[in-house]
Amino acid sequence: AAGGSLSGVAAGIARGVCRHFSAAGYGCLLEAPLRSGRRADVMALGAAGEIVIVEIKSGPQDFRTDRKWPDYREFCDRFFFAVGADFPQALIPKDVGLIVADRYGAAPVREGPHHKLAGSRRKAVSLSFARLAALRLQATIDPPRDYCV
Amino acid sequence: AAGGSLSGVAAGIARGVCRHFSAAGYGCLLEAPLRSGRRADVMALGAAGEIVIVEIKSGPQDFRTDRKWPDYREFCDRFFFAVGADFPQALIPKDVGLIVADRYGAAPVREGPHHKLAGSRRKAVSLSFARLAALRLQATIDPPRDYCV
Repeated sequence: AAGGSLSGVAAGIARGVCRHFSAAGYGCLLEAPLRSGRRADVMALGAAGEIVIVEIKSGPQDFRTDRKWPDYREFCDRFFFAVGADFPQALIPKDVGLIVADRYGAAPVREGPHHKLAGSRRKAVSLSFARLAALRLQATIDPPRDYCV
Repeated sequence: AAGGSLSGVAAGIARGVCRHFSAAGYGCLLEAPLRSGRRADVMALGAAGEIVIVEIKSGPQDFRTDRKWPDYREFCDRFFFAVGADFPQALIPKDVGLIVADRYGAAPVREGPHHKLAGSRRKAVSLSFARLAALRLQATIDPPRDYCV
């Protein structure tokens, strides 16, 4: 998804992707901000510390206008695009991971290349992931008073 | 707090402790399960990766019946007890960190000793913290269907 928060088709794909990775023991975060200024639609952290980024493409136009996706590889060990069942898969480069998903789950079509992060980057990304997840969780338990019903 | 989930006075102290550490840039988790089988009332993870455990004592009896608190030191760089303003502070050993808290915030009375975790343990604790926070957060977004209203 390009900018803003996930909505419509993209939000459904995100849910299915998170279900898939959660079932495999990963913790998942939506819209994880990166130092580069971009946001990862889904970032998943595995039991052995593996970091996965999944970029959701709601349709061909969304894919064609995104020229910056290779930047995500600096922040993960594996990168995937996730698309709906009706997305024309031939558009997606062959050397990138691909997942087909809907609201209820996801199935990998192909694994992307593994490009293992350097230790210092992995440590930084994991630590930011942990603090962000905890901050968001804390906001559900003790929400800021600025937002009143 | 000894066993079970936090309630009453302990829950209020936990909220104040989390506000204190959140304001200092830490991500906080309540009731973090440890490999030892115990749970840390509050676990906080700092920007530089520092791991803090805070054990809440709702009253003198709760403190006197807890003989296992030194075990927590294996899982953190710093350990604190947190108590309410009316707790008799003389009961708490002098060589342990102490925080006084209520629902609205917390103030450290004394820093405990720093006992820096070994790298492998720090990595394991941080990774578990990250995945647990993300799993709990995910459950607020996409709750398991077993729990219906």
